[in-house]
Amino acid sequence: MTMNTEFENQLKELQTKVNRLEAGTKDQLSMVVFSGDMDKILAAMIIATGAAAYDMKVKLFFTFWAISALRDPKKKVKGKNFMEKMFGMMLPKGSGKVKLSKMNMAGMGTSMIKGIMKKHKVASLEEMFKTAAEIGVEINICEMSMNLMGFKKEEMIDYPKMTVCGVGTFLSDAQESKIQLFI
Amino acid sequence: MTMNTEFENQLKELQTKVNRLEAGTKDQLSMVVFSGDMDKILAAMIIATGAAAYDMKVKLFFTFWAISALRDPKKKVKGKNFMEKMFGMMLPKGSGKVKLSKMNMAGMGTSMIKGIMKKHKVASLEEMFKTAAEIGVEINICEMSMNLMGFKKEEMIDYPKMTVCGVGTFLSDAQESKIQLFI
Amino acid sequence: MTMNTEFENQLKELQTKVNRLEAGTKDQLSMVVFSGDMDKILAAMIIATGAAAYDMKVKLFFTFWAISALRDPKKKVKGKNFMEKMFGMMLPKGSGKVKLSKMNMAGMGTSMIKGIMKKHKVASLEEMFKTAAEIGVEINICEMSMNLMGFKKEEMIDYPKMTVCGVGTFLSDAQESKIQLFI
Repeated sequence: MTMNTEFENQLKELQTKVNRLEAGTKDQLSMVVFSGDMDKILAAMIIATGAAAYDMKVKLFFTFWAISALRDPKKKVKGKNFMEKMFGMMLPKGSGKVKLSKMNMAGMGTSMIKGIMKKHKVASLEEMFKTAAEIGVEINICEMSMNLMGFKKEEMIDYPKMTVCGVGTFLSDAQESKIQLFI
Repeated sequence: MTMNTEFENQLKELQTKVNRLEAGTKDQLSMVVFSGDMDKILAAMIIATGAAAYDMKVKLFFTFWAISALRDPKKKVKGKNFMEKMFGMMLPKGSGKVKLSKMNMAGMGTSMIKGIMKKHKVASLEEMFKTAAEIGVEINICEMSMNLMGFKKEEMIDYPKMTVCGVGTFLSDAQESKIQLFI
Repeated sequence: MTMNTEFENQLKELQTKVNRLEAGTKDQLSMVVFSGDMDKILAAMIIATGAAAYDMKVKLFFTFWAISALRDPKKKVKGKNFMEKMFGMMLPKGSGKVKLSKMNMAGMGTSMIKGIMKKHKVASLEEMFKTAAEIGVEINICEMSMNLMGFKKEEMIDYPKMTVCGVGTFLSDAQESKIQLFI
């Protein structure tokens, strides 16, 4: 009987530990998307939609330059101050405007790559965001970066699971994820 | 007796969970090598060969610009179309031709660093790939990037464990890995 | 009795496995800080101090260009050779001197961002390092990079937990960490 109680206690202890370990390794991918380069955001979205297609939960944290790719070129927001207007003008407006990190050659390289992608039936960045929305990829946008650049959520593309939040959200998502990347 | 059956069931359940957890955490490192910069590929190869030397299984996924570093300058492939030939000419041909991300200064900075590396007995990129091959580092090359840039496997360096495959391979490798990085 | 011995053995085996799994997943974040760009180092330090504030153990591995941000502008070291002196002059001296990866515009963009950060009460890179020191973020500096660039530990900022070490230290830290990133 005492033997059994002893077993029971050890079993319970193990179960607690295993549950905690399982909670820490969800089939989830967390990615910081920092870069504003077309090629890097493309790589991020290929990994993200690929993972979601393999039934992983995918959470992207867009920060700094990458946020430009989420701007909707058709939307305008009023009430910005001088600095915020300047940022708005200087940064690319939407996924159609971001440039290659290499061989941009005043836009020529970027257009060339887009043409080749089309020919090879590789989805454009715009199409990637549509697919990502459909298969449930979550997009979090860094609140601090939004404030610094004077961006408002109303300027961003229509996207079902889009939230503005802090770095703490990324960190708690990442802790539970099997895969974490910074792009 | 029922007590024992109960124990047995709980034990089996725990064993299943623990086996699944163990399967998810191989002593393995997965890396996306995206950058075409000499310094970044060098960092990737130092981490890769370091990990393999510590008995980790190492799987690299070369994509976009990084593929240039795998081109063999002595190999030529026929039957390319105009665009593919252009890419071939514009992108660096092999690990001896990739440049620094900073301070390249028309090649002077890159040569300078190479000289200093030699003086300090740090292996060159070419030597790194040889070591990586010897200690079993696996190199996967992104099929989509190969198609976009018109590269063929026959143009790449001789490397024992080299495969052309899709992002799905990276994702399933990464899910099982203790360490994942994007460089 | 044999039934109990059998249970006991299976329990012990499970305990060993679970302990090994737990050892492999400390509440720890490991980051390679490679980039010398102000915005990327800022992102690294925001993630690092954020994680430490959430009670994670944080270990940073500064390598290549990022080491420049750790140089103390007030410290001087004698006995450098010609090449080492040149590196010292060409690379930025401290976290106040590193530049944006984009829109630097001969320093104007970097100053502009610093002004906006101040206005929005976002800590500067210098303040970030102070906070990181206070909350116990560990900084490891890549020995090989230090040798290549001719930097000495005496030139670096005063920082309580700073060590010069090899890539092996990063790898063993990363293996135990829940989150690993390369910035």
